[in-house]
Amino acid sequence: MCATKLSSNKSIRVGQLVRPLVRALHPYVPGEQPKIKGLIKLNTNENPYPPSPHVLRTVKAAVDGRLRLYPNPTAERLREKLANLHHCRSENIIVGNGSDELLALAVRAFAEPQSKSKIQPPKLAKATVQYFTPSYSLYPVLAEAHGAATNAVPLKSDFSLPGLTELTRLRHWDFNAALTLVTTPNAPSGRGYAITELEALCLAQRGIVVLDEAYVDFADANALPLALKHPHVLVARTFSKAYSLCFQRVGYFVGHPELIGALHKIRDSYNVNGLGQIAAEATLTDLAYYRANFRRIIATRAGLDRELTKLRFQVLPSQTNFILVRPPQFPAEVWLNKLRTNKILVRWFRAPEVRDYLRITTGTQAEAEALVRAVKKILEG
Amino acid sequence: MCATKLSSNKSIRVGQLVRPLVRALHPYVPGEQPKIKGLIKLNTNENPYPPSPHVLRTVKAAVDGRLRLYPNPTAERLREKLANLHHCRSENIIVGNGSDELLALAVRAFAEPQSKSKIQPPKLAKATVQYFTPSYSLYPVLAEAHGAATNAVPLKSDFSLPGLTELTRLRHWDFNAALTLVTTPNAPSGRGYAITELEALCLAQRGIVVLDEAYVDFADANALPLALKHPHVLVARTFSKAYSLCFQRVGYFVGHPELIGALHKIRDSYNVNGLGQIAAEATLTDLAYYRANFRRIIATRAGLDRELTKLRFQVLPSQTNFILVRPPQFPAEVWLNKLRTNKILVRWFRAPEVRDYLRITTGTQAEAEALVRAVKKILEG
Repeated sequence: MCATKLSSNKSIRVGQLVRPLVRALHPYVPGEQPKIKGLIKLNTNENPYPPSPHVLRTVKAAVDGRLRLYPNPTAERLREKLANLHHCRSENIIVGNGSDELLALAVRAFAEPQSKSKIQPPKLAKATVQYFTPSYSLYPVLAEAHGAATNAVPLKSDFSLPGLTELTRLRHWDFNAALTLVTTPNAPSGRGYAITELEALCLAQRGIVVLDEAYVDFADANALPLALKHPHVLVARTFSKAYSLCFQRVGYFVGHPELIGALHKIRDSYNVNGLGQIAAEATLTDLAYYRANFRRIIATRAGLDRELTKLRFQVLPSQTNFILVRPPQFPAEVWLNKLRTNKILVRWFRAPEVRDYLRITTGTQAEAEALVRAVKKILEG
Repeated sequence: MCATKLSSNKSIRVGQLVRPLVRALHPYVPGEQPKIKGLIKLNTNENPYPPSPHVLRTVKAAVDGRLRLYPNPTAERLREKLANLHHCRSENIIVGNGSDELLALAVRAFAEPQSKSKIQPPKLAKATVQYFTPSYSLYPVLAEAHGAATNAVPLKSDFSLPGLTELTRLRHWDFNAALTLVTTPNAPSGRGYAITELEALCLAQRGIVVLDEAYVDFADANALPLALKHPHVLVARTFSKAYSLCFQRVGYFVGHPELIGALHKIRDSYNVNGLGQIAAEATLTDLAYYRANFRRIIATRAGLDRELTKLRFQVLPSQTNFILVRPPQFPAEVWLNKLRTNKILVRWFRAPEVRDYLRITTGTQAEAEALVRAVKKILEG
């Protein structure tokens, strides 16, 4: 008998075996992966260009009887290559099943879950996961799934980072938070933060700071040196977006060996699949290919900014592979649907601070042009 | 400056930012993945046979520009195929980054972490993760990483399952435990349990029971129907061992949609890599190939049992792709090292209940013969 056919009564009872905290959770909703062919997918910030021919050849060549064996449990060779790239040691690096896994591990390693007593205890700094809004909407989900307290602090109205004086004045910013997560450059705003600003923030925090650089390869500067200079700072990177490897789930953290070691302790024993490790290693030997793609994407982004600005879109300055735009004439949610009708997927978030905006992945030059054509068609009614 | 070069003083301080629970953890130690060529690897229960030619062809053909895209976040097609195989619905199934990820999720979804106050509170059933010893040594690690209480109850001296009367008499078996994890057939003993015994145990438990069937394809019977019959029972399966896909990290749970739904809520958004999903889907269309391998491995296991018994090894009956043996003449740890000198890797566990035993993966017929030759050589001194 299939469990789904059990009486609803029985079904309610089995639900009681799930922790109340988990029952109350609202999970993260990933962007749509459409099944309809022919849609232009500008909704999940994937790179429009494929992995390099060398990477594809290397992965293909590894698809053989070795799939029967466990992968290297610590992604040892990949960590050595990353250490070489970043001028540190492999003890400074942990590789994850995407950087999402590592963000979840950081929450579990550094923030205490709160007491589950019904009388809500005061928020304790050591139970606090702190982040700016808007930023990566996964952060509160991870904190809530762990039972940590969240401290969401708004960015300024132009999505720039509040300075230390402002944060002090704000009161509800917590300089003792166990874990502060900063998306830099930010998503969904696309805005880059100055490294000096980030360093000042890091120095003011007494807990751990993760600088989540998922989009950094499309930016003018990066904060990686901060992870090697300040022992309480971790930098998150991913092979997904810039390196066209979303499919294979490879991300990493760089930081102090004691923090990295703590994350290693609580990860799954074989957390990174073998072909993902091989693909990432091959990527590192072919960086020129990817850097050429970054330049192409940045050029396309600049063109898209110009064209949409001409069409009376308010386009925020971007240091990422997407742009956040405030569209004219119709509400953003209406634009989302009108663009979908024109076979173009973009992303819209319901959160109040961004509900008037659309987030548009840059795509190829041809995709950007198709978007502009669709926008013109919609504006012309 | 590299963080490893910071003064040890600074380093001690950053360690304080790690949760005390994590600092105190002893992580799971996976079996050795040797770098030396020419070793016969009978230590981590991998399948000696490669994935089927159809699976390898299918995976190779998928290595193209699509690697830039996110994989299906819920492994939708794979779940549909698994549902078809097991005569249930895809809502009854969650796919994980190996079944290890799902075991960790089960601990976090179903067992409450204990209060972290220094005065140890009484063990609460709803905070208890329960399992038999010896069984999969990952279970206590997962429970401790979550801050749940562990309740480890010894199997009988012949590694068989205590009956309900015995468990009741034992007192410290907890029929209210939030989560009971049962490896079946068991590792490292290799012993299979009767489905009637397992069902009686499930019916006596008021919390959730996970029947961890990582090795079930080498057994005479399986407990999958129990997951579709009893809403509080989950069955864990993996593509790693029987289906020669350790490298790609694909496991799954079958059970009631409410429990499966709870696990979905707390997993990473894209937890299963794309090529792993594709490999697992292709595997399901080629089951005859794998079933022929199971028969070969079972035949090799029977031969190995006969040969080692002749050489005065005590060989436990096995329903898995490995055997647990009590070697003659030298302590088991000495055998481990002598076999390694002869280029054969087997597994030895320090735990008191199994320290007199070696766990030997079956391997190919040729590998089993090489093992027997090495054993004879060692016995002849």
